[in-house]
Amino acid sequence: MTTATQTRRIVRAFHDARTNGDFATAATHLAPAFSFQSPMLGFDDSTDYLASHAQFQQFVTGLDMISDLYGDDEATLVYDLRTATPAGTQRTAEHFKLEDGRIASILLIFDASEWRPLLAAAGVLRGAE
Amino acid sequence: MTTATQTRRIVRAFHDARTNGDFATAATHLAPAFSFQSPMLGFDDSTDYLASHAQFQQFVTGLDMISDLYGDDEATLVYDLRTATPAGTQRTAEHFKLEDGRIASILLIFDASEWRPLLAAAGVLRGAE
Repeated sequence: MTTATQTRRIVRAFHDARTNGDFATAATHLAPAFSFQSPMLGFDDSTDYLASHAQFQQFVTGLDMISDLYGDDEATLVYDLRTATPAGTQRTAEHFKLEDGRIASILLIFDASEWRPLLAAAGVLRGAE
Repeated sequence: MTTATQTRRIVRAFHDARTNGDFATAATHLAPAFSFQSPMLGFDDSTDYLASHAQFQQFVTGLDMISDLYGDDEATLVYDLRTATPAGTQRTAEHFKLEDGRIASILLIFDASEWRPLLAAAGVLRGAE
C-alpha cells in the first residue's frame, strides 16, 4: 500500500512533470495498466493519455490550486485551470488511484458544456465526422 | 481548526442528513456565512441552497461513492449520482471548506452538458426567460 505521504509525493511529482511539459518523467509515475476517464475522452493506455494531455497543455496558461487531499492509494485535486480558449477558466476535479506506487487511474471531472461545441467545431471530438 | 477526523464526522453527518431528506439536521452543519457554487447555480445563503437541494434530491435514485478524502478544514467527495432524469448517472466531485466546525462553502463540479438543455426546457435555469 502507498501511504498518504507517499501518495502526495508521487501525485505531486507527476502533476509537476506534466505541467512543466516533462512527459518522460510524468510517464514514469503511471502504472503499466492505466486508465483515464473524462467527460469527453477515455484512454486505456498511458502513452495515448500523455499524448492527448501534451496537446491540451499547449492551451493552458495557469492553474490555481483550490485543494489537494491525499489518502492511502488515492488523491483528489481541485483546481481552476486557466486556458487560452473560449472556455476560459475551467474548474476541475481530478481523482488519482494508485497501485504499487504508481498512478493506475485518473478520473477528470469538469463541466464540458463549453468544450463540446469547441471540439466538435475543431473536428477532434472522438467519433466526430 | 477542525482536524481531519472532525472534518470527516461533520461532512459525513451533513451528507447523510441531506441524502435522507433530513434538511433540519443538514442545516445545523452549515455556517452562518455559507456559499455554494456549481456549474449552473450559486447561492450565498444556506436556506436557499438546502431548498434547491431538496428539490433536486427527489430525482436522485442512488449514490456510488468513489472517494472521500478529509483534511484539516476541508474535504472532497467523488461519486456517481444516479438520477431519474435523462441525464442518468452523473459523475460529481464536491469540495467542502469548513470554518469553526461548520461547512462554510461547497463547490460542486460535474459535466452539466446534459443538464443545461433539460433545465432550459423546464424553464428553471436561473435567468431563463
